[in-house]
Amino acid sequence: MKDLKILSRKSEEDSIIVDVNGLKIGGNSIVVIAGPCSIESIDQALEIAKAVKSFGAAIFRGGAFKPRTSPYSFQGLGVEGLKILSRVRDETGLPVVTEVMDTRDIDVVLKYSDILQVGARNMQNFPLLKELGKIRAPVILKRGFMSTIEEWLLAAEYIALGGNTNIILCERGIRTFERMTRNTLDLSCIPIVKQLCRLPVITDPSHATGVREIVKPMALASIAAGADGIMVEVHNDPDRALSDGFQSLTFSGFKDLMDGVVKISRAIGRGIAGCLS
Amino acid sequence: MKDLKILSRKSEEDSIIVDVNGLKIGGNSIVVIAGPCSIESIDQALEIAKAVKSFGAAIFRGGAFKPRTSPYSFQGLGVEGLKILSRVRDETGLPVVTEVMDTRDIDVVLKYSDILQVGARNMQNFPLLKELGKIRAPVILKRGFMSTIEEWLLAAEYIALGGNTNIILCERGIRTFERMTRNTLDLSCIPIVKQLCRLPVITDPSHATGVREIVKPMALASIAAGADGIMVEVHNDPDRALSDGFQSLTFSGFKDLMDGVVKISRAIGRGIAGCLS
Amino acid sequence: MKDLKILSRKSEEDSIIVDVNGLKIGGNSIVVIAGPCSIESIDQALEIAKAVKSFGAAIFRGGAFKPRTSPYSFQGLGVEGLKILSRVRDETGLPVVTEVMDTRDIDVVLKYSDILQVGARNMQNFPLLKELGKIRAPVILKRGFMSTIEEWLLAAEYIALGGNTNIILCERGIRTFERMTRNTLDLSCIPIVKQLCRLPVITDPSHATGVREIVKPMALASIAAGADGIMVEVHNDPDRALSDGFQSLTFSGFKDLMDGVVKISRAIGRGIAGCLS
Amino acid sequence: MKDLKILSRKSEEDSIIVDVNGLKIGGNSIVVIAGPCSIESIDQALEIAKAVKSFGAAIFRGGAFKPRTSPYSFQGLGVEGLKILSRVRDETGLPVVTEVMDTRDIDVVLKYSDILQVGARNMQNFPLLKELGKIRAPVILKRGFMSTIEEWLLAAEYIALGGNTNIILCERGIRTFERMTRNTLDLSCIPIVKQLCRLPVITDPSHATGVREIVKPMALASIAAGADGIMVEVHNDPDRALSDGFQSLTFSGFKDLMDGVVKISRAIGRGIAGCLS
Repeated sequence: MKDLKILSRKSEEDSIIVDVNGLKIGGNSIVVIAGPCSIESIDQALEIAKAVKSFGAAIFRGGAFKPRTSPYSFQGLGVEGLKILSRVRDETGLPVVTEVMDTRDIDVVLKYSDILQVGARNMQNFPLLKELGKIRAPVILKRGFMSTIEEWLLAAEYIALGGNTNIILCERGIRTFERMTRNTLDLSCIPIVKQLCRLPVITDPSHATGVREIVKPMALASIAAGADGIMVEVHNDPDRALSDGFQSLTFSGFKDLMDGVVKISRAIGRGIAGCLS
Repeated sequence: MKDLKILSRKSEEDSIIVDVNGLKIGGNSIVVIAGPCSIESIDQALEIAKAVKSFGAAIFRGGAFKPRTSPYSFQGLGVEGLKILSRVRDETGLPVVTEVMDTRDIDVVLKYSDILQVGARNMQNFPLLKELGKIRAPVILKRGFMSTIEEWLLAAEYIALGGNTNIILCERGIRTFERMTRNTLDLSCIPIVKQLCRLPVITDPSHATGVREIVKPMALASIAAGADGIMVEVHNDPDRALSDGFQSLTFSGFKDLMDGVVKISRAIGRGIAGCLS
Repeated sequence: MKDLKILSRKSEEDSIIVDVNGLKIGGNSIVVIAGPCSIESIDQALEIAKAVKSFGAAIFRGGAFKPRTSPYSFQGLGVEGLKILSRVRDETGLPVVTEVMDTRDIDVVLKYSDILQVGARNMQNFPLLKELGKIRAPVILKRGFMSTIEEWLLAAEYIALGGNTNIILCERGIRTFERMTRNTLDLSCIPIVKQLCRLPVITDPSHATGVREIVKPMALASIAAGADGIMVEVHNDPDRALSDGFQSLTFSGFKDLMDGVVKISRAIGRGIAGCLS
Repeated sequence: MKDLKILSRKSEEDSIIVDVNGLKIGGNSIVVIAGPCSIESIDQALEIAKAVKSFGAAIFRGGAFKPRTSPYSFQGLGVEGLKILSRVRDETGLPVVTEVMDTRDIDVVLKYSDILQVGARNMQNFPLLKELGKIRAPVILKRGFMSTIEEWLLAAEYIALGGNTNIILCERGIRTFERMTRNTLDLSCIPIVKQLCRLPVITDPSHATGVREIVKPMALASIAAGADGIMVEVHNDPDRALSDGFQSLTFSGFKDLMDGVVKISRAIGRGIAGCLS
């Protein structure tokens, strides 16, 4: 990969550990990011945030600007959602992450969120990547569901070239012919990315599979494969979620997942980042 | 496809014919769009434009803002490229089309170009689609290389919902396991799109295949399958092109392609749009 | 492609023209193969054969051994189906083609059929390919829906290495993420195969698309792309067919397709092989 | 999946545990199958078998009939290879597994091997599946690299319908657009297969990835995802292997993999089957 320079493992620099208000991503501890697909209300967001924190999540996730296939689907609460996120952070102490889709929205998202997420559909939105290179806040860069590992790492290099190396890669499934899962979680990418690149890498088994029942085994497999963390969807009432309810874990499902995550992490000599540690 | 409403074939409205300065796209005539991948200089652009016009192209294409996988590749001439495009239009009388990648650039692209193109990587850049719904200039919406037909039509619906139905769909190949072509041109999508949707549809066999030698047969196949036009890359010196030279036709290659296009079009009872007609 | 030797275009030998009882495949004329997915009875087979012959088909197709995804689906009439095929040949004068799936069945299929077909699922059934190298009857080698062009040509080389170069390649769609068609007909493979290999190549738009309405445009596109023929499914009563009825053409649909095939063939300077000529 | 009957999880029968000379596959213990891609000589086979046994492998694998893309590649030692396998079994006490590709070879493979493997390219070789339904020896059924989970389970049902339910499913990677690995190991299939079907399921991370360095993380991930075992390639001299050397583990690499396998298995409450237990 000749054009991977700043982020290349072959450079003389060390692995990059991303610092989020003191929480380290990419070190020896596994980071768990949890929350609903969409922020729906302050009550919903707070209830979920408190629950996932109590079970060991280190970061709260929730969508305000939602990229939806159909223009007639719920498009997210927008700035109102960002304000709710920010209140959740204040009340729980959890750092928060949310997606930014438009170069014009970076400032407002930065105002309310600790980490900015680039979604799969925007992985090669080059103007957005270039703007994110100018900030210093951490960026979660999801792999496009149609993108090769090489394209993904070069998308990260776009951000790094602008001066921001606070990047966390996130595998969220690639599009294949298989129809029993929404996408195919490509766990092979984890050791490959680790060989080529200095960035931390996590996975999102909820979006990858689209099937609640297999989120836990895919989370455990991610950690066994060497991922630095996972991001999962959790909802207080999945059947009534405004988006992606069928893939969201219930609170008890999330508790069960965390039990497994702790065991697998220990087996490979890693701890859990954040409030449990 | 329950969420295809405005653009649905099932609506009571007729097929949409897009008017570009009097040139009709989606009617009985086949439209040929040709030009270089990237605008490199006024001399290059003018030489190519005059050549393709002389062989029967109706619209000139050329990239100013280029979405490149690597941040270290040539990124296009930007606004300077737009100004060149505009001069080409003035000198040749050909309408011009170029890509827009950022919501912040729509105004400047509109100033210099007749048609705005949304590239494959931005097919689900929803903020961009929403902004393009607010203008009235024609939009070429390329199919994402890993997007389903359903997602593509719903992306068009995003633009239409904003009030702009001057949309031309462009199939440019989908990503598959086959490695002898860059992507796989999915010609089956043409009759399917025609059944479901009221928009005109063209193909881009140059980007789809990435192989100069098979651009002509794929162009002829597109028209035989029912496409309303083709968009092809032509360069005065393909081996020295700043991008995609290996898939660009030479002038004589383009002339040969046009001969075939005329024959196939006649065989199915269609003419050629624009200066030849 | 270093291991393509006997069949390579780079060898000093000419293009291979396959001779089926005097009918030439791979020359200047387009060959049309038509018939039902499965042979169901002598009455059904004869009725269809007579109809497709009257509209210009040169070869009759019909399955006796059927590869079905589920063991509980109709598996074909077996040897009884072969005998029906043979009667159809006697009564109509049309050469016939049917699939062979097992090395143990080659002799019996040879007894009743003029051409042996290797189905997509058996493209890399190497023992079967090796046995087919020992006979001299023409073989239609379908591309596996999961196979690259390179793998396909090397599968043909397996047959040729045994001494049988009477091979007709048949593209029948590859598996992709798109769900509105059963598979994606990869027409780019036609000019690529022609560049690399000396064999004739045809397409099967019925199996590729799985959608009756788009068989005709894909047949026309195949010929415009340079294919030497097409193979299509035709049924006297598609809604009651024992397999694949939804993709079978009616008699009037086939007649309409032939009208288009004749026009496109003429436009590129080719005729129609067989009874019409 | 309406046509999954005998093997369906919804049937009233229990999970199927396959017994190989007293070794249980599909119970609480993880089974490790190891050996070279191809049997090359008695010395090579014995050296590898003794090494993998000493590190904890329960079953020895080695190819005698090899499905190779090119007819000019090494095709395996055939019956001579089978005899070597059988000697390895006698000298080490390890059960052995090898591939069968042709209905005509089943008897001879049965004579020398404990388990018969159906390779990815033959997953839908229905005559072969039907014959394997008539025997009682265990069958490893590899998933085709472009087969859906549904097709895979129905292929197993073909064998079961004949009367043989001693089937072990093996995921070995599916074909996708990603090019840094040979195929994409689809670990999501493990929990899905477990939900739908009563059979044990293992993975083959060597063939799936084609990259030696990532075999271990993918093996650990497989077990964390719930697999009942793994099958890996090990060679005494990978750089000189007659096939697939680049993906084969060295002895020390296999020892390291086993250390990880033991730890992950313990973390989820499972032991290791066979000689280590």
